[in-house]
Amino acid sequence: MHIEIINTGSELLLGTTLNTHGAWMGSELIQHGFRVQRQTTVPDGPAIMEALAEAMTRSDVVIVSGGIGPTSDDISREAAAEVLGVDLIEDEAAMRSIEAFFARRKRPMAEENRKQALNPVGADVLANPNGTAPGVYTPPRLSGDYFCALFLLPGPPGEMKPMFHAEVTPRLCALADVSREHKMQTLRFTGIGESDFHTQLDEKLLAIPELEVGYCARPSEVDLRLIGSRENIQKAISYTLATFPTHCFSTKGESLEAVVVNLLTTQGKLLTLAESCTGGRIASRITDVSGASAVFTHGFVTYANAAKRDLLGVSDDLLESHGAVSEEVAIAMAEGALKHSNANIAVSVTGIAGPTGGTQEKPVGTVWIGLATAEHSFAIHKIHAHGREIFKQSTSQNALDLIRRELLKESGCPS
Amino acid sequence: MHIEIINTGSELLLGTTLNTHGAWMGSELIQHGFRVQRQTTVPDGPAIMEALAEAMTRSDVVIVSGGIGPTSDDISREAAAEVLGVDLIEDEAAMRSIEAFFARRKRPMAEENRKQALNPVGADVLANPNGTAPGVYTPPRLSGDYFCALFLLPGPPGEMKPMFHAEVTPRLCALADVSREHKMQTLRFTGIGESDFHTQLDEKLLAIPELEVGYCARPSEVDLRLIGSRENIQKAISYTLATFPTHCFSTKGESLEAVVVNLLTTQGKLLTLAESCTGGRIASRITDVSGASAVFTHGFVTYANAAKRDLLGVSDDLLESHGAVSEEVAIAMAEGALKHSNANIAVSVTGIAGPTGGTQEKPVGTVWIGLATAEHSFAIHKIHAHGREIFKQSTSQNALDLIRRELLKESGCPS
Repeated sequence: MHIEIINTGSELLLGTTLNTHGAWMGSELIQHGFRVQRQTTVPDGPAIMEALAEAMTRSDVVIVSGGIGPTSDDISREAAAEVLGVDLIEDEAAMRSIEAFFARRKRPMAEENRKQALNPVGADVLANPNGTAPGVYTPPRLSGDYFCALFLLPGPPGEMKPMFHAEVTPRLCALADVSREHKMQTLRFTGIGESDFHTQLDEKLLAIPELEVGYCARPSEVDLRLIGSRENIQKAISYTLATFPTHCFSTKGESLEAVVVNLLTTQGKLLTLAESCTGGRIASRITDVSGASAVFTHGFVTYANAAKRDLLGVSDDLLESHGAVSEEVAIAMAEGALKHSNANIAVSVTGIAGPTGGTQEKPVGTVWIGLATAEHSFAIHKIHAHGREIFKQSTSQNALDLIRRELLKESGCPS
Repeated sequence: MHIEIINTGSELLLGTTLNTHGAWMGSELIQHGFRVQRQTTVPDGPAIMEALAEAMTRSDVVIVSGGIGPTSDDISREAAAEVLGVDLIEDEAAMRSIEAFFARRKRPMAEENRKQALNPVGADVLANPNGTAPGVYTPPRLSGDYFCALFLLPGPPGEMKPMFHAEVTPRLCALADVSREHKMQTLRFTGIGESDFHTQLDEKLLAIPELEVGYCARPSEVDLRLIGSRENIQKAISYTLATFPTHCFSTKGESLEAVVVNLLTTQGKLLTLAESCTGGRIASRITDVSGASAVFTHGFVTYANAAKRDLLGVSDDLLESHGAVSEEVAIAMAEGALKHSNANIAVSVTGIAGPTGGTQEKPVGTVWIGLATAEHSFAIHKIHAHGREIFKQSTSQNALDLIRRELLKESGCPS
C-alpha cells in the first residue's frame, strides 16, 4: 500500500515546533508492516487543499493530522469534502459528543465548536474521547477518482495518538490485502561507530536476501535497524551478536539507562553517582526509568572542587597535585560516593565540558570516569570534543555502559 | 519568495529518526524574513525525482538535504541534472577537495567518493569543509522551464548547517528582490497557559494590523511568536508585558535555565539544589548553560529517605510524621542543602513522579518545591499528573521559575 502523511501547522514550517507526529506515525505503521512513502508539511489554511489532492492521486491511504479544530484556519474537513466532491453535513452523534465534552467540564460550548461536527457525506466519524474534534475516515469507495482511503486526525498528540491506535491501525490492517509478514527490529550499540559496522558486518548482512538494513548514529550510540521476515531478522541478529558480542546493549530498542536499571534490579544492587561535568545528567537519565527508586538512592553533583571535598571527602592535596580532572580524583570521587551512601557500585565523572577551561595537556572534552565497588576501583579516560550538549550525552553514555559492563562481569556474562 | 524544503532519508519515514533539519531550516530562514511554504520528506532512492520536479514547478527556491553521499542510494545529484535537463560533469576543484579531505585524515579514498565531484553543468559547487560531499547550487536562469533556484546540501547536521550559513543564506538574500522587513520575535512564559492568552490578550494583539500571532505550548511553558514589522512587534510586546508582567521570562527566546544562570551571575550568588523526584534534571538543566560553574557548585540527588537524612540532615522524625512528600520536608531539604553547601539560595523538590506510589491523600503528580535563603524559607505545592517525563519537566520548570522570581524580588523587580 502506498501511504502518505500530511501534517498541517505553520509552527512546523517556522521551526518553532519539531514535527514529531510524522516520525511517530511512521514507527507505528512499520510495526504492522506498513511503510510511509512520503510525508508533507503544509501551513495552516488553504495549502492543505493542493497537498491533499496530490497525495490522494498517488496513494492508497492518506493520513492528515491537524486542521480539524474550531478556528478559522482549521479547514481540513472542508478541503477533504472539496477534493472528494461531496457535501459537508452535521453529524448528530458527533454534535452530541462535543456537547457532552463541554458539559462534563462544566464549560460553555462556543458556537465555533459546532463546525467540528461537520462530516463529508458518507464518511465515518472517529470518536475522540480526549478532545472536542472528532476524526474523519472516508473509505476508498467514496473517494471519487482516487480510490484512496483518507483519515483526518486531530493535531494535539494526546488526542491524535489514542485515535490512531483505536481507529487507524485496525482499519489499515483490514484494508491491506497484501501479506504483511515484514517486521522491524532495532538493536542498539554503544562503544562502536557506524564505520565499524561497515567494515566488519555489512557484507554478511547484505548477503541475506530481502532484508533491509539501516543505521542511525547518535552521540556514542548506534541503532541497527532490520526489516524483513522474522527468520531473516533472526539470522542477521546472530551474525551481529557474533561480530559485536559486548557492544550491543539491547535487541529490543530499549534505552541504555533502562538496561542498567533492569540489571541493578535483577541483581538487587544499589547505584550511586558522583557527577562533576555531567552536572546531574546521568542521575536524571537513571531516574527517567520507572522503578529507579529501588536501585538509586543517593546522588552527588559535585561541580566545584569544594563540593568534591565537602560531599565526597576528596582531599585538597589530591585535587592540587593531580587536578580535578584526573584518574586519581575520579577514583577518589567514586570511592567517596560509595562511602557516603549505602550503594554497592559507585560511578564518578570529572571532565572539561567547555567551551572554556581547556589546557594543552587537558583539552576541552577530556573526561575521566571512575568506578568503585567494595572489591576494586579504577577509572577510564575519554575525549569528546564536540560541544557541550554532545559532551554531556556521550559522557553519560560511557558512564552508563561502564556500569552495564561491570554488572554483566559480576554476573558471569561476557563484557 | 515561495520556498520549499525536501528532506531525504528512509529513517525519517520509518520514525527511527526525527526530522530536525526541516524545523532548523525554517527557523533560520524566518530570521531573514523568508517563510517555508512546504516541507516534504521522501525515502532514499528514486522518490526524490518526482518530489523535486513537483516542488520546482511551484517554487522560487527549493532546498534539498541528503542524498549527495557516495552510496548507490544517494541520487540527489542525478535527480537534479535530470529535472534540469543538463548533464553531470566531474568538477576538478571539487575532486581535488575530496582527495584533500582524505589525505588530511590519512585515509584511502574509495572509488565511490569520485561521484561526489559530479556537478550539473552550469551549477556552482558549494564547499564542504566538514565532510566529503560538496553541495550544489543552480541559479534560476539555469533551471529550464522552472525559473527556480535549487540547493543540494549534505545530510549530516555538522556539514549541512555550516554550509547553510555560508552558502545558502547569502544567496537567498541576494536573490530576494522583495522588501524583507518582516521579523520574528519569540517571548517565553511560564506559570500561565495558552487559554490565558486567548482570554486576556488575543483581542488586543489581533487588532494590530499585519501582525502574525502564534503560540506554542510545552510542559509548563508557552511561546508567543510574533511576526511583523519591528514597530508592530514592539507594540505587541508592550501590550503583552502589561498584561502578564511577571510570567514572561524571556523576550529573546532564551531557555529558563539560561535566564536563571544569568541572574545568578549578575547578582554574584551561588545556587544549590536538593532533588528527589526530579532526580538530577534541574541540576542537569542548570549545567547545560555555559558558565554554570560560577554559580552552581554543590548539588544533591536525594532520591531515598536515607539520602535526605544522610546528605541533608532531614530528621527521621520529620520524615515519619509528615511523609517525604510534604511542605515540612521540602523546607527541611532546602535548609539542609543550604547548610551543607556554601550557597546563597537553595531549592528542593520532593514528589511522586509515578506511575506508582500515589495515595488518596497524595496522588501521583503531587510535588512540594522548597526554597531557602539566609533570610527565609518556604515551600509551594503543585500537581502534575501527566506521566513521568512531563512531570519531571514541569516540576523542574516550576523550580527554576521559583529561583527566577526570588532573584528578581531581591533585586527589586516585580515578580
